[in-house]
Amino acid sequence: MEPFRVHILGCGSALPTLRHYASSQIVEIREKMFMVDCGEGTQMQLRRSRLRFTKINHVFISHLHGDHCFGLLGMLSTFGMLGRVAPLHIYATAEMEPVFRSQIDLFCQNLGYDVMFHPVDTSRSEVIYEDRSLTVSTIPLLHRVPCCGFLFREKPTLPHIRRDMLDVYDIPVSQINNIKSGMDWTTPDGDVIPNSRLTLPADPVRSYAYCSDTRYMPGLHRLLRGVTMLYHESTYGDDNQARAVKYFHSTATEAARVARDAGVKKLIIGHFSARYEDEKILLEEARCEFSNTFLAEEMAVFNV
Amino acid sequence: MEPFRVHILGCGSALPTLRHYASSQIVEIREKMFMVDCGEGTQMQLRRSRLRFTKINHVFISHLHGDHCFGLLGMLSTFGMLGRVAPLHIYATAEMEPVFRSQIDLFCQNLGYDVMFHPVDTSRSEVIYEDRSLTVSTIPLLHRVPCCGFLFREKPTLPHIRRDMLDVYDIPVSQINNIKSGMDWTTPDGDVIPNSRLTLPADPVRSYAYCSDTRYMPGLHRLLRGVTMLYHESTYGDDNQARAVKYFHSTATEAARVARDAGVKKLIIGHFSARYEDEKILLEEARCEFSNTFLAEEMAVFNV
Repeated sequence: MEPFRVHILGCGSALPTLRHYASSQIVEIREKMFMVDCGEGTQMQLRRSRLRFTKINHVFISHLHGDHCFGLLGMLSTFGMLGRVAPLHIYATAEMEPVFRSQIDLFCQNLGYDVMFHPVDTSRSEVIYEDRSLTVSTIPLLHRVPCCGFLFREKPTLPHIRRDMLDVYDIPVSQINNIKSGMDWTTPDGDVIPNSRLTLPADPVRSYAYCSDTRYMPGLHRLLRGVTMLYHESTYGDDNQARAVKYFHSTATEAARVARDAGVKKLIIGHFSARYEDEKILLEEARCEFSNTFLAEEMAVFNV
Repeated sequence: MEPFRVHILGCGSALPTLRHYASSQIVEIREKMFMVDCGEGTQMQLRRSRLRFTKINHVFISHLHGDHCFGLLGMLSTFGMLGRVAPLHIYATAEMEPVFRSQIDLFCQNLGYDVMFHPVDTSRSEVIYEDRSLTVSTIPLLHRVPCCGFLFREKPTLPHIRRDMLDVYDIPVSQINNIKSGMDWTTPDGDVIPNSRLTLPADPVRSYAYCSDTRYMPGLHRLLRGVTMLYHESTYGDDNQARAVKYFHSTATEAARVARDAGVKKLIIGHFSARYEDEKILLEEARCEFSNTFLAEEMAVFNV
């Protein structure tokens, strides 16, 4: 199967620590790389990751809190110095463009490429990006400012052709696309070979949902039904349940409940509060509700 | 003597590398800490340095290029979250305030302290900060945008009193300040004890000059006469002399010439181009002109 991976560049929360950078990750799908959030230090982490800067053409910003976007300007500036010419598309709430545009004008004069802002409505789920092989949709979240997550979903692919059967029935290559599309094959003798004999099932459609920052939303699972991998913020543990409610964040237990209710295959938790010197306690709490949970960590790569 | 040190938080140039952060340093004088420049990642470096955030009340920004100020907003935001109440003073060219103010308004709502901007005229040398024990003056530099360095200079102190002489001549404590100010002492018998016998010379006045970014300025040494320690940018080596001229930067050799001509005691070179994987070549070139040269490095501490 084609690669579909998430590279964690930063998974801390608002206060930077010696262990965690602010939020940012790269979603790698086939040959494309999408950035989700861009906290301070993201460009340094990107360099450390050795991922190819030039493959990033789309940046999705969940909300306008500094730990999710203060790294953007430095990255734009660096891309310019490295000679980028391809446009860069930024998806964020409408209020982002004017404030960043004035900074770009002041700090990134003579930028050799266009920065295109695409305003995002965080109040509903809609497709905001689409290409031949995938869609990206918004996931409305509940935070102190307008905020949404992002759902990356592959488009269904065609079944695989069975090369051995092509040989057996001497089927010409020109017919492959027809067969992939479901056609049976009729031999010169008039025998009909059913399509199911000529193909293997298509790869399952994979999907990845990024949900940060948000208060626990008991109904969120309805938007995440069938998701393969979920990243859900887990700023706090059960010991800080009241704080989670107050600041519109989630606990690890709550993140795991969303994963369980949605029936996802794998849960990654992140956006850890600086107060936890070791997030194992968060992992243990989450695993009580949903066993296939993993801790995000800088430079970790998770296969979807 | 009271501490007077420079803590290097970042000494890279515009392109961040795996080895260097963007420009920032802390000038520690007695109990005070002054920040000079604040590139992206400064707050992380500050945390790594274990210096006390709360002691920083004044931030001097040399010029409005991203690698000298993109870390400011994140640091302001973090200071707010950590409960800061003391005002923070920012010294920079006048165009800084509006663009940062609109970001502060958007990203740092309910900041519990005041951010005060002090416009700086980079075209001449003038005192922009003064307290009981030191002054900070601007140093006009020559860069692609208005830019200045900063000169931290201790105020002269009074001579030290010789405690042993107080005992010998039975001088009351109430007379110490008079004697420190130069008065002789007359014994009850009418003998005059000259001041020079009662005191030791005052500590020498120390000073530190920060000069980044700038094209080589053959006359710069006139403003740096008698400076104890000079930090001068050395973006390039002799191999990139033409590039230094073109981009208004200096070579290590040029930095060393400034140090030599000014007669400073110690030279620190920094603001290294990302093209040098090892700055030893810069150090060697500088030392040909001025032997007491040292390479800046993240987390290094230099005594003035």
